[in-house]
Amino acid sequence: MKLKHVIKSQQFDRDLLTEIFNTSQQMESVFENGQSKLLSGKILASLFYEPSTRTRLSFESAMMRLGGRIITTENAKEFSSAAKGENIEDTIRVVQSYADAIVIRHHESGTAEKASLFSDIPIINAGDGPGQHPTQALTDLYTIQKELGTIDDISIAMVGDLQNGRTVRSLCYLLSKYKNIKVYFVSPDVVKMRDDIKDYLTKYRVSFTEESNLLEVAKKVDVIYQTRIQKERFSNNPEDFEKAIGKYIIDESVLNVMKDKSIIMHPLPRLNEISNKVDSDPRAAYFRQAKNAIYVRGALLKHLLT
Amino acid sequence: MKLKHVIKSQQFDRDLLTEIFNTSQQMESVFENGQSKLLSGKILASLFYEPSTRTRLSFESAMMRLGGRIITTENAKEFSSAAKGENIEDTIRVVQSYADAIVIRHHESGTAEKASLFSDIPIINAGDGPGQHPTQALTDLYTIQKELGTIDDISIAMVGDLQNGRTVRSLCYLLSKYKNIKVYFVSPDVVKMRDDIKDYLTKYRVSFTEESNLLEVAKKVDVIYQTRIQKERFSNNPEDFEKAIGKYIIDESVLNVMKDKSIIMHPLPRLNEISNKVDSDPRAAYFRQAKNAIYVRGALLKHLLT
Amino acid sequence: MKLKHVIKSQQFDRDLLTEIFNTSQQMESVFENGQSKLLSGKILASLFYEPSTRTRLSFESAMMRLGGRIITTENAKEFSSAAKGENIEDTIRVVQSYADAIVIRHHESGTAEKASLFSDIPIINAGDGPGQHPTQALTDLYTIQKELGTIDDISIAMVGDLQNGRTVRSLCYLLSKYKNIKVYFVSPDVVKMRDDIKDYLTKYRVSFTEESNLLEVAKKVDVIYQTRIQKERFSNNPEDFEKAIGKYIIDESVLNVMKDKSIIMHPLPRLNEISNKVDSDPRAAYFRQAKNAIYVRGALLKHLLT
Repeated sequence: MKLKHVIKSQQFDRDLLTEIFNTSQQMESVFENGQSKLLSGKILASLFYEPSTRTRLSFESAMMRLGGRIITTENAKEFSSAAKGENIEDTIRVVQSYADAIVIRHHESGTAEKASLFSDIPIINAGDGPGQHPTQALTDLYTIQKELGTIDDISIAMVGDLQNGRTVRSLCYLLSKYKNIKVYFVSPDVVKMRDDIKDYLTKYRVSFTEESNLLEVAKKVDVIYQTRIQKERFSNNPEDFEKAIGKYIIDESVLNVMKDKSIIMHPLPRLNEISNKVDSDPRAAYFRQAKNAIYVRGALLKHLLT
Repeated sequence: MKLKHVIKSQQFDRDLLTEIFNTSQQMESVFENGQSKLLSGKILASLFYEPSTRTRLSFESAMMRLGGRIITTENAKEFSSAAKGENIEDTIRVVQSYADAIVIRHHESGTAEKASLFSDIPIINAGDGPGQHPTQALTDLYTIQKELGTIDDISIAMVGDLQNGRTVRSLCYLLSKYKNIKVYFVSPDVVKMRDDIKDYLTKYRVSFTEESNLLEVAKKVDVIYQTRIQKERFSNNPEDFEKAIGKYIIDESVLNVMKDKSIIMHPLPRLNEISNKVDSDPRAAYFRQAKNAIYVRGALLKHLLT
Repeated sequence: MKLKHVIKSQQFDRDLLTEIFNTSQQMESVFENGQSKLLSGKILASLFYEPSTRTRLSFESAMMRLGGRIITTENAKEFSSAAKGENIEDTIRVVQSYADAIVIRHHESGTAEKASLFSDIPIINAGDGPGQHPTQALTDLYTIQKELGTIDDISIAMVGDLQNGRTVRSLCYLLSKYKNIKVYFVSPDVVKMRDDIKDYLTKYRVSFTEESNLLEVAKKVDVIYQTRIQKERFSNNPEDFEKAIGKYIIDESVLNVMKDKSIIMHPLPRLNEISNKVDSDPRAAYFRQAKNAIYVRGALLKHLLT
């Protein structure tokens, strides 16, 4: 079950996910140890057409923790700048001579997949515009398994901007591989989950409902997955943003009704959609989730490069 | 005497300074050797919210000379960009999962200290706005000790923009730990040393005077610490800048009156406040001072990470 | 025959070129092996005053493949920013304390040479404005030797913007070291090869002619070296750009007349001056040429640092 590229959530089946998560768990002790030579002599090229410091640093950290090396740019858009205008195929054909794998972040949906068609070395999609961010979705799923001990049989509330949020969309694709999942969508009217995902869940027999009362949902679910209302998506109708922001906040009132073993997740960064007072509650899993990113990304690098 | 973070000059007492400078001296031979594994397996994250290539490269060089690795961004302001708006606490909580220490440069005074409150790993302040730049101050002090053989009993002229110059302010804090120091402030009227530092020196019984005749002072002192008049600080009154610039230049006339064993320092970059003709004089210590930065920063990394 | 700096094509004589190309060939197996420690403990500083991701990443990859380490900036112009205004001499004097070699890209012709005058460590010119880009020229020449088995006795068509193209100019300097070279210049009237190069070729008895019919030339030559018409050079007369662009395209009609053993080269990036349909033809050597860059740059690093 050799992994060649990491492009989108749909490419993973349950067996592969299990295998990757087993490796992710191994990574926790490998990284603790701090002296792995597993990827010694290997070079990862970070090609970021738009900055995403958090994602980039976590990939680079994982690569280094495994003994690998990094060449990096936050300025990859220079490849395709007005004057030079190189297409992505040529860029990949050149950069693959300099590295053993490429992690790419791009503003246009589909770029990572296109890159993979021309590459002799593994391509990892670190987010392509409104498209996919599969390593985030894998991190989210790994966090659920690690925190709750299972992914089957869970209920999850997805909260906030479900229309534009890339992470909740990717997570829905992955959850459909598991049994007896119940999804609650809780979002302002202006940013409801799109039909394509609802159709996908229906097709794969994942139960879901749309709810408006966060407190009622919070009582029941195993996971609250909060997301940020992204102001930049509302440039044309700022009044919609005002309606959306602040409608669903995770604060002490939510903590008070949540089950003891439930968790709160967030892909970060957050603004005020989770109150700082929640941070010290053991159910606040979002910083542990951020840390899991390096284990999952390390596991992917191992699968791709060894 | 375990060092946990490096935030500000005032945190260092004389014993700790002595210990750090001893380690700095060891670093000179460690780096010469070139194959240290002391920090092998450790990762330093450079989070620069504003570029400071000189400072960043010297930290990264020191880390690598000790066998460590680097993840780096000159674009950390993206963490707190308009759309995303993450606060520094969250950023630190995330990045600490990816690294073993964080060196941070920020445009706002106090940011490094705030970061240290939330961090499980060492934070190093590489300059926070008009606030502090403690590793520069330690480098300056180490240079004085190395060049003159002592810090006690020296006289030093601080020249140029004393009002806005972060380095002279930090250096005053550190000099107050030593005995029988005599400070001469030589600056244009529009950028005189502020009262807070003068009060601090008075409190710690450091002798100081304000002078206007550079040549008279140059005859007497062991150290001339020249600084740049920073044009960007005069955006509201450019005529003040014109008055300040060029008033105190270190040139051959200064060299002619200086003592044989005295030295000229400058935190760099310089414009024309030190004539190029001075560079070849053995008393011109500023490039040696720049080199000392990697020894001191290497010593700090050793103290923080081992 | 110790190499001290890499500044311009003219500094290389034929013996040194042969030696560098022999080392470049060794690099192919060294890099394949992937675990060289040749430059272990050495640090290369990338000082890029303007971004050139392709060039920078290839240098950094070569350094890492040899076991070395990298400190890097795409933002070196900050050294000489309006407010700070440091000259290149001071920058080099400082950075040489942090690294074992410096690769520099600058927008002003002559900067690398000036830097080398003040540097105790090797300086490598990675392109200085309209001036030189010697490591590209060496890569080009190495590619010719590798592809054709010889550099003597070849004929080469240089096509496209010969007036502004740095690479064809540098290549002419190098070709003059070899025997029985025949050069065909094929360019739109508005961007013809300048007299200085033609005078140089005449002086060194290299035969050249200016031609306008690409197909006629393509039949005869061993190498077609295509270049990009650089829109940014025509900002004052866009109508000239329109005349130049698209006049000489390498497409199937050119392939049809070329000799079987001939090759097509291009320094990349390309726009439409080589049709994508050419890529799969074995005579399309430009991606192999891009890969050769890391072998040649690795060889230079070895010569400079060991």
